[in-house]
Amino acid sequence: MSLRDEILEQPALLNNLITSRMDFFRSLAAEITRPEAIFIAARGTSDNAARYAKYVWGVKNRIPVALAAPSLFSVYGKPPQLSGMLVVGISQSGESPDLLAVLQEANHQGCTTLAITNQPESPLAAEADYLIDIQMGPERSVAATKTYTGQLAAIAMLSAAWAEEEENAQQLRDIPGMISQVLEQEGHIQGYATRYRYMDQCVVLGRGYNYATAYEWSLKMKELAYVVAQPYSSADFQHGPIALVSSGFPVFAVAPSGQVFKELAQLVSQLKEDHRADIFLITDHTELLKQADCPLLLPGSIPEWLSPLVTIVPAQLFSYHLTIIKGYQPDAPRGLSKITLTR
Amino acid sequence: MSLRDEILEQPALLNNLITSRMDFFRSLAAEITRPEAIFIAARGTSDNAARYAKYVWGVKNRIPVALAAPSLFSVYGKPPQLSGMLVVGISQSGESPDLLAVLQEANHQGCTTLAITNQPESPLAAEADYLIDIQMGPERSVAATKTYTGQLAAIAMLSAAWAEEEENAQQLRDIPGMISQVLEQEGHIQGYATRYRYMDQCVVLGRGYNYATAYEWSLKMKELAYVVAQPYSSADFQHGPIALVSSGFPVFAVAPSGQVFKELAQLVSQLKEDHRADIFLITDHTELLKQADCPLLLPGSIPEWLSPLVTIVPAQLFSYHLTIIKGYQPDAPRGLSKITLTR
Repeated sequence: MSLRDEILEQPALLNNLITSRMDFFRSLAAEITRPEAIFIAARGTSDNAARYAKYVWGVKNRIPVALAAPSLFSVYGKPPQLSGMLVVGISQSGESPDLLAVLQEANHQGCTTLAITNQPESPLAAEADYLIDIQMGPERSVAATKTYTGQLAAIAMLSAAWAEEEENAQQLRDIPGMISQVLEQEGHIQGYATRYRYMDQCVVLGRGYNYATAYEWSLKMKELAYVVAQPYSSADFQHGPIALVSSGFPVFAVAPSGQVFKELAQLVSQLKEDHRADIFLITDHTELLKQADCPLLLPGSIPEWLSPLVTIVPAQLFSYHLTIIKGYQPDAPRGLSKITLTR
Repeated sequence: MSLRDEILEQPALLNNLITSRMDFFRSLAAEITRPEAIFIAARGTSDNAARYAKYVWGVKNRIPVALAAPSLFSVYGKPPQLSGMLVVGISQSGESPDLLAVLQEANHQGCTTLAITNQPESPLAAEADYLIDIQMGPERSVAATKTYTGQLAAIAMLSAAWAEEEENAQQLRDIPGMISQVLEQEGHIQGYATRYRYMDQCVVLGRGYNYATAYEWSLKMKELAYVVAQPYSSADFQHGPIALVSSGFPVFAVAPSGQVFKELAQLVSQLKEDHRADIFLITDHTELLKQADCPLLLPGSIPEWLSPLVTIVPAQLFSYHLTIIKGYQPDAPRGLSKITLTR
């Protein structure tokens, strides 16, 4: 299996997860009753899934979510007092000692713990009170793709189960088909990659649910294509970093319809008109697409809260083709191994 | 007052804050008894101060700290339920509507609220139950410097007051003198800036307490010198972005003595020996400095928890001189204004 194969198999694997396991999530949500607060430990791509959880569990379930600083547990040995929180570890491999340290301490403090992983036999899975096995099959590429969307799906399914709204589950079932529609644009995306053959830096903008997408797209461009890509929420970007944007500066923006769309659309227009930035835009909004140098049209009517499952897929494909066009090896990024052990 | 003046007046202003207001912080800590959890809303430089708070309040006071996603309040209108949390807004100007929305909702939910600001007459200060006026005097430069160290000092003083350890207060009083020692190296720092005349991208590494320093140094290089500078914890860096580092790639590292020193030292050595990176290093460790292309020696025996107040100062001076050598205007960055209003 190559990286491209793992990108392409996402609709089938996600469809299986979403259609076959909703009952499991319902019983999990019945056992872990809606917590007062959630504390998440994660690294790398999984940390971007945690960013998504902060919005989904925040907006749909009104639960405050804190992202752990694992070094408080593993290096400083002075963990915060987490009483009453649900403590969640998210990790593809379930191997990293710093995440394990967070769950061990949480269990020691008597918290409920949950692991979200692709490796049900891992130390993280063994430590947690509850386990969500995302069942995405072995991921051989160093750059995570299908385990990221698998983690997003698991987070969304748990949210839907806590919310007990049938509409949410139905919306989830429509997502794999929408991802398939996006994958059909691969030729299009491959064509765009050529333009960025000599790009060595860029910014990636998203907000709200798709703040996670901006982070994850940036990480893919960094680890695969060695582009210094920087993620920002459209709000944070205006508090300083917008100074970077001179004429021709490459900006990648993720702007599906939804409550943050208007703000992102205004920023994209400002970057195009006032800064003459070069814009790669992912949206379902045909009018805004006219502003883009590289327009990528999403299927219409994706529910905003699930849009990160769809918007990251063209970003993965783009990162893959950018890597090829730059002459690098998408299946063997330099200096990385699949499992990174940090404390 | 120019940006450089504001950098240079930090020891005097911080000395005034630390020596004259410890009693105020003691009575504040007596009124806001140690909370079960803290929720912080901030943007830009103030968000980097919030990153510092996550470590100080976490390690010294064992309080879990969550950084708010302001859009949950201001855009989605679905705020999390924050019962029992202390909700803190950090802002130089106290003007941004999205931060104000977080404090309004927190008050509506019956939480205790605190504003940390340089503008005691601002809307944020008016909304909060409690106010910490950092009293750093008017900051005219668009790039925040003295208000950042003022925010860090306020966060550290509240932590010391909650901890009720006299040693902490004494350690705080030594900090302005250490900053003065670093400022004496300005000629040295100015000399280093020349080397980076044509640098357009880099990474900045820190961990633990100085994760905030990595973020804030990056932000200064971005907003003043238009360098695409990316901050990482040394742990996150190894989960993907290390792939960026080819021979000669510029790495800035903040590695004062303390519990994360060993890990950072190993990473710096690996980046130098295996990746042949170009290293600018801030540390008090003379042996590690030999690995650096640009070594910057800190005063010895800075307590790790207060080191971000000292380590950011050479970084501010470097960013200032880098801006000059690149031919830009440190007092008028393009596309930015002092107060940014986002929702």
